[in-house]
Amino acid sequence: MTTEPTSKERKEPAYLFSEKQVAEKSALARHFLDSRARLNENVNQADNYLVKRFYNLDHNAYLEGALPAKYKELMGLAASACLRCDDCISYHLIQSYRLGVTRAEQEEALNVALVVGGTIVIPHMRRAYELLAELYG
Amino acid sequence: MTTEPTSKERKEPAYLFSEKQVAEKSALARHFLDSRARLNENVNQADNYLVKRFYNLDHNAYLEGALPAKYKELMGLAASACLRCDDCISYHLIQSYRLGVTRAEQEEALNVALVVGGTIVIPHMRRAYELLAELYG
Amino acid sequence: MTTEPTSKERKEPAYLFSEKQVAEKSALARHFLDSRARLNENVNQADNYLVKRFYNLDHNAYLEGALPAKYKELMGLAASACLRCDDCISYHLIQSYRLGVTRAEQEEALNVALVVGGTIVIPHMRRAYELLAELYG
Amino acid sequence: MTTEPTSKERKEPAYLFSEKQVAEKSALARHFLDSRARLNENVNQADNYLVKRFYNLDHNAYLEGALPAKYKELMGLAASACLRCDDCISYHLIQSYRLGVTRAEQEEALNVALVVGGTIVIPHMRRAYELLAELYG
Amino acid sequence: MTTEPTSKERKEPAYLFSEKQVAEKSALARHFLDSRARLNENVNQADNYLVKRFYNLDHNAYLEGALPAKYKELMGLAASACLRCDDCISYHLIQSYRLGVTRAEQEEALNVALVVGGTIVIPHMRRAYELLAELYG
Amino acid sequence: MTTEPTSKERKEPAYLFSEKQVAEKSALARHFLDSRARLNENVNQADNYLVKRFYNLDHNAYLEGALPAKYKELMGLAASACLRCDDCISYHLIQSYRLGVTRAEQEEALNVALVVGGTIVIPHMRRAYELLAELYG
Repeated sequence: MTTEPTSKERKEPAYLFSEKQVAEKSALARHFLDSRARLNENVNQADNYLVKRFYNLDHNAYLEGALPAKYKELMGLAASACLRCDDCISYHLIQSYRLGVTRAEQEEALNVALVVGGTIVIPHMRRAYELLAELYG
Repeated sequence: MTTEPTSKERKEPAYLFSEKQVAEKSALARHFLDSRARLNENVNQADNYLVKRFYNLDHNAYLEGALPAKYKELMGLAASACLRCDDCISYHLIQSYRLGVTRAEQEEALNVALVVGGTIVIPHMRRAYELLAELYG
Repeated sequence: MTTEPTSKERKEPAYLFSEKQVAEKSALARHFLDSRARLNENVNQADNYLVKRFYNLDHNAYLEGALPAKYKELMGLAASACLRCDDCISYHLIQSYRLGVTRAEQEEALNVALVVGGTIVIPHMRRAYELLAELYG
Repeated sequence: MTTEPTSKERKEPAYLFSEKQVAEKSALARHFLDSRARLNENVNQADNYLVKRFYNLDHNAYLEGALPAKYKELMGLAASACLRCDDCISYHLIQSYRLGVTRAEQEEALNVALVVGGTIVIPHMRRAYELLAELYG
Repeated sequence: MTTEPTSKERKEPAYLFSEKQVAEKSALARHFLDSRARLNENVNQADNYLVKRFYNLDHNAYLEGALPAKYKELMGLAASACLRCDDCISYHLIQSYRLGVTRAEQEEALNVALVVGGTIVIPHMRRAYELLAELYG
Repeated sequence: MTTEPTSKERKEPAYLFSEKQVAEKSALARHFLDSRARLNENVNQADNYLVKRFYNLDHNAYLEGALPAKYKELMGLAASACLRCDDCISYHLIQSYRLGVTRAEQEEALNVALVVGGTIVIPHMRRAYELLAELYG
């Protein structure tokens, strides 16, 4: 029988920075977070049952668990960079930053994506480095 | 100026198990490793300059560095599962196992891939679970 | 022998709304349709034989046939959302709307894409919901 | 507030054929269904919370709803063919068949995928036609 | 007005080897060509109008034209390798071989794909090298 | 033993036009080249060892070799168009133009991509034709 994991097994990660703090530090992050919030409002109003469940599942995948949340965010980053989704990359860069991931660690996760995904990852990596420069500058 | 990183910064990870030990434990792993070795021999004989350099670059991306090698292998796993490359998945599952990653950790990395990549990841995840069962059984 | 299907078998669908009406209702649709028309003019001037044939084949795939055109547009929508092509998504959302597809039906087609394609579909789905809000608002 | 949809809104589709009947009719379908069942057993034993929820979400996306289940299966087919997942294609071909979709309808859904996804879809379409020949032969 | 190009502009390439000769030289090529012929027979029997047109369009894209056919086959090879379609790779390797492309040229086209597409191309490249070894051995 | 190829085997291609000349001729090219230079400066400052090596490898893949550089750029173009990377498409269109590739040749390379990659390539092809019109206008 599958039982809902206890709070001890999977719990909300402890963020070092709020989204608001990130938005104050970086104009690129602010633009991304504002645009995402505006569009999500739209999705929330639609109140689609399956979308809500999917958002919830997505949230669950990055909680603290067998793996520390910060490494799961970096896995999300590497996967997003390989799949070349700029919004997803920005999201995971910001989440990783909020969890105390260093710039060197972010770059190594992007390097895995670069090697796995090839030069088509480069345009996305360039934009990622621009955000990294603002976040860690 | 870019300088070659010192051995302290990036070094070979310490494997808990050799490829041979993995091949003895799991028939699926053995089949994959044998087939990969046989085909790589073919590539090696061609002695293509750019291919050799690319192999070397690939090797470098997973060394110990700012991030522990085991988490980079799991990033490679998540990226490979999203991109739906069975051979790459098998490779990173085995590498992670050799570095002492637990089964629960492997499953969480696959969960990130599943959520990021959707149900098209499922057929690959099923085959991954078969290999996990042999490796950790 | 392959014979050109008779007009009875495959025919132009009956649109409830013209592109002009859609453009008047939604600023996002107008922007998309204008930009597409402008760029297509460019392609038309090139008068490339193979491109013209491919456009024609594309047109043929969405005619009324064994499947009603509206469901084929929704298949195009689901496929486009999985492949994460914003322009293609906008196009099929508009075409489906013109054929009388309801908003609930559009959302269900997007849900198939979301589940098949995973969270990397979400940024595109968000933008799709913005267009849906304008079309059905 | 999001409320669980009532059974009237989304319900299990009425299949014309059981999986067993499909397996008796087609050797290719039988091979696919057996292999899938065997591998899923493995996944079920792992009893991973997130995987179970994802399977459940996947199941929900194809229920009867605003769109008839059979068209959602064909959307899943078109999406799977574009994303070039043979297992997913086999699954949706079989599900569509079980829901009374005609061969001509299946071919038109594959045509949408072929035009959207290009010639790289062809090797998968060839294998799909082999299964179609057994199912409808 | 678009006019059908004259035979001078686009014409069938002159093959140095027939498919039969290729199949006699390489067991891998023979297996691929036989399997493809068998499955295509199936598709041909279905006699689907849009599929036939798509096959014809595909054929047209690789004729002699502004670019020599051999370079277009290598473009098809690079594209197929990036998109990781083994059947497509085998097809374009064989077509290129039939048009007199050297092994060094084939390897360079694969190198473009490797760099553009990253390490996920490697498993496909390994299999491509096995076929190259048989064709040019 | 792998030896560095001699300068005779792989050498820098002879460009007919400098990037500056291209930027003067086309506003779209100028915008792309400026944005790319600005973002690359950012990446260069990070001075990441693996990124630098990957850039170098990428550079090597398009040198004169067994295949003339111009055809390798067109292979990069076809691959980029199939993978639907606008920045990569712009880059290879410009590089090909600088190497004396004619507009008809560029269109044929894009046609290979269109047929291989399907209608999802069309939005990218439309933008490519806009750049072609400026470069060759």
